[in-house]
Amino acid sequence: MGESKSKMSEPVIAVTMGDPSGIGPEIILKSFGKEKSFGRSFVVGDYSILEMASQLPGIKAPELHRIEAPGDCLFSDGVLNILDLKLIKEGDLLKGISNAVSGDAAFQYVKKAIQLVRSREADAIVTAPLNKEALHMAGHYYPGHTEILASLSGTTDYAMLLYDRKLSVIHVSTHIPILQAITRLNQSRIEKVIELADISMRKLTGKPPRIAVAGVNPHAGEKGLFGTEEIKIIAPAVSAMNSRGINVEGPFPPDTVYLQAVNGKYDIVVAMYHDQGHIPLKLLGFSSGVNITVGLPFVRTSVDHGTAFEIAWKGIADEGSMTEAMKLAIKLSR
Amino acid sequence: MGESKSKMSEPVIAVTMGDPSGIGPEIILKSFGKEKSFGRSFVVGDYSILEMASQLPGIKAPELHRIEAPGDCLFSDGVLNILDLKLIKEGDLLKGISNAVSGDAAFQYVKKAIQLVRSREADAIVTAPLNKEALHMAGHYYPGHTEILASLSGTTDYAMLLYDRKLSVIHVSTHIPILQAITRLNQSRIEKVIELADISMRKLTGKPPRIAVAGVNPHAGEKGLFGTEEIKIIAPAVSAMNSRGINVEGPFPPDTVYLQAVNGKYDIVVAMYHDQGHIPLKLLGFSSGVNITVGLPFVRTSVDHGTAFEIAWKGIADEGSMTEAMKLAIKLSR
Repeated sequence: MGESKSKMSEPVIAVTMGDPSGIGPEIILKSFGKEKSFGRSFVVGDYSILEMASQLPGIKAPELHRIEAPGDCLFSDGVLNILDLKLIKEGDLLKGISNAVSGDAAFQYVKKAIQLVRSREADAIVTAPLNKEALHMAGHYYPGHTEILASLSGTTDYAMLLYDRKLSVIHVSTHIPILQAITRLNQSRIEKVIELADISMRKLTGKPPRIAVAGVNPHAGEKGLFGTEEIKIIAPAVSAMNSRGINVEGPFPPDTVYLQAVNGKYDIVVAMYHDQGHIPLKLLGFSSGVNITVGLPFVRTSVDHGTAFEIAWKGIADEGSMTEAMKLAIKLSR
Repeated sequence: MGESKSKMSEPVIAVTMGDPSGIGPEIILKSFGKEKSFGRSFVVGDYSILEMASQLPGIKAPELHRIEAPGDCLFSDGVLNILDLKLIKEGDLLKGISNAVSGDAAFQYVKKAIQLVRSREADAIVTAPLNKEALHMAGHYYPGHTEILASLSGTTDYAMLLYDRKLSVIHVSTHIPILQAITRLNQSRIEKVIELADISMRKLTGKPPRIAVAGVNPHAGEKGLFGTEEIKIIAPAVSAMNSRGINVEGPFPPDTVYLQAVNGKYDIVVAMYHDQGHIPLKLLGFSSGVNITVGLPFVRTSVDHGTAFEIAWKGIADEGSMTEAMKLAIKLSR
């Protein structure tokens, strides 16, 4: 254990390698190569895959250090610890293509990481992207990462928070049909999400956030003319959380509240459904954005992008979001 | 009639002055002051209000020419014809405040303009902004301009098209509760809106547009996992219009299709509900955007912004959208 004193107090971060056929391996190498160190962290993945990725053009890889258990970690600058699950046989890797072998490996890395946080061998999880199609090919029928994490940790009161310097958004619902997202809106869920926004943003920014809550109807219902969810459900939730001392306002017209947040009036927007939050985020680029699952029994951050098969294994993927995900996981875990 | 030969073939545009308490009068004066002429056009409004606005600092007003009927117009550069409805008495104007007198006047200008296009004394209508609250104070219970125009012209098959250099969007529905917007989605309406997009964009750009249709569920339903509207309703509509020779694709995930259009892959996006289209448009600024009501028996364009009471009658309003609205009305009417 080459652990320096200054790092002893740092949280331990388990980084899942993501789908081996995608850009996960290279963005991890690029990110650690540039930053030299992210406190005390290790990758849950396949050593041979990362070694192969380290040969890609344009990659200044860190020194790769294979470990059998988190206790074997060498926490030194420039060293990347790899908990080697040995799931992909040499020559078996299909680069840039959805396949069951890679889909299963991606799932196993996440499962292992969850075991490690549950056994307190790690404090937080950072996930590189997995591919839903490959996941399903391997027989793991989850809509995505978040649902795997929630399911394997037995949590239901979680929410997806997308954090970016330009705009941060937390979602009342995500991967469900929009009709269900609307009909299932209820006051207690909205209150919970406002609370999660408050707790998380305090950790991320060090101060109480100014929270804006979006409406769900055009013009936030125009006083009931275009829908009553704002009057019956959303406004009472805002009011209740306000009286609990949270700095929250709304509901505001969905088509202007995101711009107001971008312009600095609010620190985070509570989106009523997936696309209400995702449309503005994706339009703004969100290249160094981080996906945070809040409400889990442990900290989890993720890159905000997918496996990007079309550019995978070419050494050209941007590691910005991975670097941010690492930094925020450390901040949230302290 | 000082009409020059070159203008004889131009369409005649009736420009409604909008709510007199808002920025309508000044953006009309600024726009005509800068451009000198918009083919053959006249304002439907109050002469005394425009005269008062012409005294505002920073306004280079055109020469104001009061008329009693469209036939009295003087179509010369630098002359602004005003069909004077004499609705606001001197000293009665409340600047920058919602009030019934202004709300009623704004309504009467639109009503008169519709009469003029129906009697063929004008070919198209361009509207300056009205204020919904003031409109309701005056007892005219319409959600907005578009609904007045549709109602008074007996049209139901219309759609709101927001046209901008960065992004153009046409909406399957607008001012209704989102729950209704989802449950009322149907193939024939989507086909109609795709057709209106095709017809309108051909006129606006001079060539067949590349049309993208957004889905309505997260990830466009993820093959039915997050909703089936894409499979049952939207895809069949796209397919039907494609086989009629229209260059249309989709349904695409709502959170990425707008960015693809901004990046030049499509000329217009068909949005499934109000905020799906309005969130990206407003986020992009849309300062010279134009609101076009397509499917009416006449051409109608509008500024894309409101009465902006907070800055009204200060001479600081931006006339960009008004100028674009005039130019597009002429283009669409030819």
